[in-house]
Amino acid sequence: MTHPIDQAFLSLLGANGWLTSDDAAQYGEDWLKKEPSKPLGVARPGTTEAVAGVVRLCAEHNLSLTPQGGNTGLVLASTPRQTDARAVVLSLERLNDIRSIDVVGQTVSVEAGVVLNSLQEACAQHQLTLPMHLGSGGSAQIGGLISTNAGGTHAFRDGMMADLVFGLEVVLPSGDVWRGNRAMLKDNAGYPLRRLFCGAEGTLGVITAATLKLKPRPHQTETLLLACPTLESAQHIVSHGRRIAGALLSAAEFMDETGLYLVASHCSHVANPLEKVAKITLLLEFESPSSQIPLDDAVQNIVTSALENDWATDGVQASSEQQRNDLWELRESITESQRRHGVQLKHDVSVPLQALSEFISVTTERLQEAFPAQLINPFGHLADGNVHFNLSPASTQDETEFLAAADQLNAIVYDAVVEFNGSIAAEHGLGRSKVTLADRSRDRCERLLMKTLKNSIDPRGTMNPGVIVATTDEVPDVPG
Amino acid sequence: MTHPIDQAFLSLLGANGWLTSDDAAQYGEDWLKKEPSKPLGVARPGTTEAVAGVVRLCAEHNLSLTPQGGNTGLVLASTPRQTDARAVVLSLERLNDIRSIDVVGQTVSVEAGVVLNSLQEACAQHQLTLPMHLGSGGSAQIGGLISTNAGGTHAFRDGMMADLVFGLEVVLPSGDVWRGNRAMLKDNAGYPLRRLFCGAEGTLGVITAATLKLKPRPHQTETLLLACPTLESAQHIVSHGRRIAGALLSAAEFMDETGLYLVASHCSHVANPLEKVAKITLLLEFESPSSQIPLDDAVQNIVTSALENDWATDGVQASSEQQRNDLWELRESITESQRRHGVQLKHDVSVPLQALSEFISVTTERLQEAFPAQLINPFGHLADGNVHFNLSPASTQDETEFLAAADQLNAIVYDAVVEFNGSIAAEHGLGRSKVTLADRSRDRCERLLMKTLKNSIDPRGTMNPGVIVATTDEVPDVPG
Repeated sequence: MTHPIDQAFLSLLGANGWLTSDDAAQYGEDWLKKEPSKPLGVARPGTTEAVAGVVRLCAEHNLSLTPQGGNTGLVLASTPRQTDARAVVLSLERLNDIRSIDVVGQTVSVEAGVVLNSLQEACAQHQLTLPMHLGSGGSAQIGGLISTNAGGTHAFRDGMMADLVFGLEVVLPSGDVWRGNRAMLKDNAGYPLRRLFCGAEGTLGVITAATLKLKPRPHQTETLLLACPTLESAQHIVSHGRRIAGALLSAAEFMDETGLYLVASHCSHVANPLEKVAKITLLLEFESPSSQIPLDDAVQNIVTSALENDWATDGVQASSEQQRNDLWELRESITESQRRHGVQLKHDVSVPLQALSEFISVTTERLQEAFPAQLINPFGHLADGNVHFNLSPASTQDETEFLAAADQLNAIVYDAVVEFNGSIAAEHGLGRSKVTLADRSRDRCERLLMKTLKNSIDPRGTMNPGVIVATTDEVPDVPG
Repeated sequence: MTHPIDQAFLSLLGANGWLTSDDAAQYGEDWLKKEPSKPLGVARPGTTEAVAGVVRLCAEHNLSLTPQGGNTGLVLASTPRQTDARAVVLSLERLNDIRSIDVVGQTVSVEAGVVLNSLQEACAQHQLTLPMHLGSGGSAQIGGLISTNAGGTHAFRDGMMADLVFGLEVVLPSGDVWRGNRAMLKDNAGYPLRRLFCGAEGTLGVITAATLKLKPRPHQTETLLLACPTLESAQHIVSHGRRIAGALLSAAEFMDETGLYLVASHCSHVANPLEKVAKITLLLEFESPSSQIPLDDAVQNIVTSALENDWATDGVQASSEQQRNDLWELRESITESQRRHGVQLKHDVSVPLQALSEFISVTTERLQEAFPAQLINPFGHLADGNVHFNLSPASTQDETEFLAAADQLNAIVYDAVVEFNGSIAAEHGLGRSKVTLADRSRDRCERLLMKTLKNSIDPRGTMNPGVIVATTDEVPDVPG
């Protein structure tokens, strides 16, 4: 006999819209497979009204709700708590319509479940692009990108996801639909509601659709890979590059020699075109809108300045789309290489750009003192101070011993972040995995403000419980 | 004998920090002199701690508090209600320290009372600029610009004020200080608190300091004035310009022949270099970061395309800084000319860019039908759909009759905005003057969300009462 709760969801959503048991398993598993959970069921509504129906049904049956997009997050924000026996996952994957593209206004109205790369393909047909670039574009969905306020490689120039959102449609915890999916940059008619939901990680409601700011697709792209003796020298190149190329500089990614060692060890098909692995390898990209704005002089100036000032000792410039992709593959293989290497401690942090170099060297020193000879692999976004400060044991070291030191190593990184006035969660969010940490590094006033927001908009506390704001009370067991 | 309330503020702030009676008069008057009010006193604290002291004193004595920056707003957000006998104005003018400029990170940490143009001068010394440009830069203060989420001429490219804020320091209605004045773009450690206060018009707390995103100062600037037969043709030029110049296009302002007629009539010292006044005059500006990125080919292409396609019939390009300033003066004299003309109805609205031309022609037609031969003067920002849709009687018309039709004329404009899915408050905010209007055009869900935010963060309702969210209860009279 079908359980009354299943029956209610099946009536609302049909057989294709409600999954239980085995079919639901993958939805309960986070990308890093840290905490596989077992949701009561997975709702897959196909319309905004059906999403509202799911929210109301959950309220009626006292169920918690975790909205889920591409489920590529790293901080446990899109899967339920393992202890929650009354958890429903709300997958947005069937809300995948690109409603309309406004070529004049350079905006797109899109549903939450559309995958980033699919949206890019649709925009490309109109010579437009969403200026949001990150490794998970093949899976990440628009609703998730907004809910986590995604950053990526172009954020220093084009802003984070919140900066690209003109309008939102949101199902609130009450089941009401806020129809704020407007298409204007300038809309100051009251509180900035659209900005409130960007980065709220599904704890204040479910984003069902958005209108996003697009840009014209670049006409020309030039990509450089430079070998730099130090992080400071790489920073000199970026500063000079920003001065010379301004907004035509579109990416400035740095990799440590440790990162490239991991790539060479575990993704050996990925080639490094530079002869020697430098302490820091810098990937620079430039974009020009048209043939009337050529990039050659600027790129030439930057390369020459870098070599003449000894900011770089070697460099290559991609001469084909294939070579360009190869340079990016080097950068984007770091994460996968480190995963293949074995256990790791990931830290997604940011500090004021001015302090970045000192932050990295001070922290590295302290880490080496605590656990000598480990692999310290800082890499990331050199124009906005966002470092992925990932640690692994060396191949010769014992994984268990390394993991035993995890708390101490994490504390070294996060204490340094606080010391340098940085952020313990730069672009991946808090999820559930960083809430305790955030509560330690946020002052009372900030904690109270966040709790106030959560309690006022989700007074029953059933929207993605435990994410961003800690829950104290556990949800009771599901009845038989 | 000094009143106990005065005594309390004098003890906290000193004689220079607390003004009453005549000295306070100018602080009670809004820029448009629509509703002069008589605050109980004006607090002028010099530190964040003193601001917190003022907030706590107001709470203690059951006084309402209206934060005030440069007081250049147009919607009654920076002066108290006329009926409020217990109103204190909190002027931020003495919090005017530029705390630090980070040249590498391209950020500035600045107190709320710093005037925009002063900040620009300080940044210019480091070859940096805050990408925020509007007519009131000589008076507008940073705190007010953030609290109103200012827009201006470069917003379509560089974002609104909220997009330039990395960190905020805010005194909350409780008197607690939220120390969130961080210097990172990427900071996803919880709800986007910094974004919540941008555009909240001082109703959720008092912004005392901010860290803002800067850009390198342009190396070369080119400014064009083009005579266009229709708004559509001007839009073709802008679309083409964005495709050719991308982010090097920095401004795209349009003026109607009516606006230029008003300038010629009332600001005759301002010259229009174009021989004949066209239906639409378009001001385009381009910025290049360095000599390695020359603008000449792009500008030439855009002028040639405009003339060959009959999108423009005539044009001039500024050949000196003086000529550039003259072209901008033409644009910036429209507001002052219309004020000198006499009575007017101002509307700061936006619609999706795709619909702008139709919105203007439909609305113009309806307005002319309701009150024939009036002066209909739409002008503004052609790349983001923000129109200042201002109306005046013709010189031959009776001002009283025009004003008698005001409600009808306003309704025509705002009904059309709603019809075209636009915003009734694009870049000037709601203040008190548009709250009733907003409540008519916002649905129940949006009203409730805003009220919830207000009530949760300012539960006593004493922070800038009547702004954004309507108050129902009046504040009682001041005791003798």
